[in-house]
Amino acid sequence: MNFSSALIEEAVQEFSKLPGIGKKTALRLVLHLLKQDKDSVQRFSKAIARMREDIRFCSQCHNVSDQDICRICSDFSRRKNQICVVETIRDVMAIEATQQYSGLYHVLGGIISPLDGIGPDQLQISSLMQRVKSGEVEEIILALSPTLEGDTTSYYISRTLKEYPIRITALSRGVAFGGELEYADELTLARSIQNRLPIESLVDHQQS
Amino acid sequence: MNFSSALIEEAVQEFSKLPGIGKKTALRLVLHLLKQDKDSVQRFSKAIARMREDIRFCSQCHNVSDQDICRICSDFSRRKNQICVVETIRDVMAIEATQQYSGLYHVLGGIISPLDGIGPDQLQISSLMQRVKSGEVEEIILALSPTLEGDTTSYYISRTLKEYPIRITALSRGVAFGGELEYADELTLARSIQNRLPIESLVDHQQS
Repeated sequence: MNFSSALIEEAVQEFSKLPGIGKKTALRLVLHLLKQDKDSVQRFSKAIARMREDIRFCSQCHNVSDQDICRICSDFSRRKNQICVVETIRDVMAIEATQQYSGLYHVLGGIISPLDGIGPDQLQISSLMQRVKSGEVEEIILALSPTLEGDTTSYYISRTLKEYPIRITALSRGVAFGGELEYADELTLARSIQNRLPIESLVDHQQS
Repeated sequence: MNFSSALIEEAVQEFSKLPGIGKKTALRLVLHLLKQDKDSVQRFSKAIARMREDIRFCSQCHNVSDQDICRICSDFSRRKNQICVVETIRDVMAIEATQQYSGLYHVLGGIISPLDGIGPDQLQISSLMQRVKSGEVEEIILALSPTLEGDTTSYYISRTLKEYPIRITALSRGVAFGGELEYADELTLARSIQNRLPIESLVDHQQS
């Protein structure tokens, strides 16, 4: 596209580097910003620059943080003896959004995926070991993606931690709430039958 | 959503102010930027800040520009006796993309829309008059959206310019009535410029 301004061209270029944003959407966003007052565009620009510049990762759980230790790890009201192991910081947010978990987290930074060249050494597994060694941990909840790679990673971690006297659990598998049974894949459906639950647990869940 | 970092929270807030970008998409974009190196995020942030700070509008055609006179107006290879009248700078880009037009532009900044409180005085119509008065102009091409408001504006301008010895044309109706100009495909837009019609035919069409 022919822009009459190099400034706009550059801004559109930059916006269209973002995932899921093509040239037309980028232009729409740029023209929107052009209509806003200078202060609010400055605020937008600065929030992004500062975010990338000042962001830190929690030295304990590797979640994003503004300080050396993140808000969750330093929250006294949370249970320190439970660690929920997740792939990314996005999973932390997803689980936090459920408001059902009051323990700590451990962000691996990915899952074992030989095809992508990601082995256990590229992940934060040794630091998880260190946390377990410290002795305070009683349960590790493996909340990884229900895929082959996720299961491989869960299995690897559970084996690595075998020698420690802790409970190792994983997210329950089954048909998703609100889904249609006929569209559930065979593996999920098979597991849901094998791991069927007493009806009381379902009723309890609905009532809560 | 509960963010473990105020920096991320702020960046997500800012992104989600953009049109068509909700909280989830904003978070996805922020997490994407978080994975990029600091330099490229700085480039992104600066491109936006600079764009808004330094952008100017061409004092002749009101298109966006980096200088007092825009690239198009100062291009010696373009025909100075043709002026294509459009609503917004986006329409200029759309027409430029067809590569079918070698004249100049005039950006009105909107169209007459009594419901939105926009009358002729809010638009760059008097400066269009000035350009026509200068005597160099031989043809005015009214390339406004094929809507009731667009046609009203076209009709208003054609009446205002009636006393001058110039040709007044409008885009041919290859573009569907009720559509928005910027979403028209390039072929349709190119044909509409090639087959532009005298303003009378548009008026006849509205009356029938």
